[in-house]
Amino acid sequence: MEWINEANVLIAGLGLIGGSYAKALKRLGFRVMAMDKDEETIRYALENKIIDEGKTDDSLLPKADCIILALYPSIVAQWVSDHQEHFKSGVILTDVTGVKSGVVSKVQDILREDAEFIAAHPMAGREVYGVKNSDDKIFREANYIVVPTEKNTDEAIKWCKNLGRVLGFSRISVLTPQEHDSMIAYVSQLTHCIAVALMTCDDNEHLRDYTGDSFRDLTRIARINEDMWTELFFMNREPLLERIDGFIAEMENIRAMIDQKDEEGLKEKMRLSTKRRMLFDK
Amino acid sequence: MEWINEANVLIAGLGLIGGSYAKALKRLGFRVMAMDKDEETIRYALENKIIDEGKTDDSLLPKADCIILALYPSIVAQWVSDHQEHFKSGVILTDVTGVKSGVVSKVQDILREDAEFIAAHPMAGREVYGVKNSDDKIFREANYIVVPTEKNTDEAIKWCKNLGRVLGFSRISVLTPQEHDSMIAYVSQLTHCIAVALMTCDDNEHLRDYTGDSFRDLTRIARINEDMWTELFFMNREPLLERIDGFIAEMENIRAMIDQKDEEGLKEKMRLSTKRRMLFDK
Repeated sequence: MEWINEANVLIAGLGLIGGSYAKALKRLGFRVMAMDKDEETIRYALENKIIDEGKTDDSLLPKADCIILALYPSIVAQWVSDHQEHFKSGVILTDVTGVKSGVVSKVQDILREDAEFIAAHPMAGREVYGVKNSDDKIFREANYIVVPTEKNTDEAIKWCKNLGRVLGFSRISVLTPQEHDSMIAYVSQLTHCIAVALMTCDDNEHLRDYTGDSFRDLTRIARINEDMWTELFFMNREPLLERIDGFIAEMENIRAMIDQKDEEGLKEKMRLSTKRRMLFDK
Repeated sequence: MEWINEANVLIAGLGLIGGSYAKALKRLGFRVMAMDKDEETIRYALENKIIDEGKTDDSLLPKADCIILALYPSIVAQWVSDHQEHFKSGVILTDVTGVKSGVVSKVQDILREDAEFIAAHPMAGREVYGVKNSDDKIFREANYIVVPTEKNTDEAIKWCKNLGRVLGFSRISVLTPQEHDSMIAYVSQLTHCIAVALMTCDDNEHLRDYTGDSFRDLTRIARINEDMWTELFFMNREPLLERIDGFIAEMENIRAMIDQKDEEGLKEKMRLSTKRRMLFDK
């Protein structure tokens, strides 16, 4: 399926991310269908022209040339198993989940022979939820990672990269599931652990009167969806524990430098940190 | 000295913060004088009407009704000791430094009997330096902390709170030097340690291709002025070490919850963190 052709896209799960995919793809002229278990969600999306067609049941599946699984990671494999009898032959599926090792192989193992699943991780989000808050501007300046396995065809990998491009992502890259999960444990899950710990390690009610921008920046993500993040942490437990240990060890290093007044050691860390962070701002 | 009266204000040290004070006070109709060891700084400030009068020597001191010490923390006490013979009798002094226990008592111990020093911490700043980057808009939405000791009069405390108000700060609060330093170790210095450690605990050159907003937010302050921050860390060493220990202990708690799949414990932490962070956004 080429992105320049007319294609019927079906989005399974019309939340913040699913809704944002819908808006981007509809703007580009695709026919966008959605399945969601919540009737009100479908009604809202139809009324606001976010989708062309929407159902709470299976009935749109046979029309879909491609399916975006915009579901919680823990239910992706089960959803495929429950619904694949209705898939069109040759359908291509992708997902949006933030953990891969546990999801990708499970889906690929159970998937029909005449369908292909190519995993992707759109690294975009907001602190609010649901289709009403969806907005495809969140993809601009953001990163998109394609996560193929040896079971994927070159065609599907190319298709998935193109999907990232048409959605408007700035940087598209490719990682194995293991590389992806270790990276994500670092840049996403570890940062959320830190933000939560920073917010809960002290019990001051008047914090707001004393904080500057730095504390606000480090705790923006401390407003956190506890169901989703607990699930993500547990699904990526081993890589995350490794990253937490690495970070705590580095905090202990810096602590020792302050304790021992190791001026040169501390300045060296700060110069390294400055140099690395500057690469982001180019 | 009342803020509604005509008063001669002298700013010692015309950098980013000193220059921003000058701009705010001049806009309000005060006569603003400045002392700075750099001639080019004084010339620039006069030419751009940031100040009414400026000198690199002592000659303006006898005219000043109040003095703002906008200097690096390590030189504040020495500056007072070197210049106080020229102070007008009854002069009131305040400062802008980010650490208090080591500075306030030192200045109050050596100060002339007919002068009063009341400490304050304007929690505002930018990642750039010097009078050319000064801008009193940085005080809006920012916090201002008055830090009195038992040596201060009620009048001076009131004067200092009013200074914060006329400068345009949103929230004015009062803390003891010990409370201030413990708070600042938490909301400012600990956050900078975390940002540096997060940036230096891994050595991936392609990080930029995989990061989302959360990692960017947590490392914005990892671009850090190593001279100033090493000085601040060492000047506030004990409170900072305590805060680092408290934070590491909380990270270890969260680590154990992930390791043991303690779902309820982890969700409870996240709900607490969400509740506390929401207070900031009101």
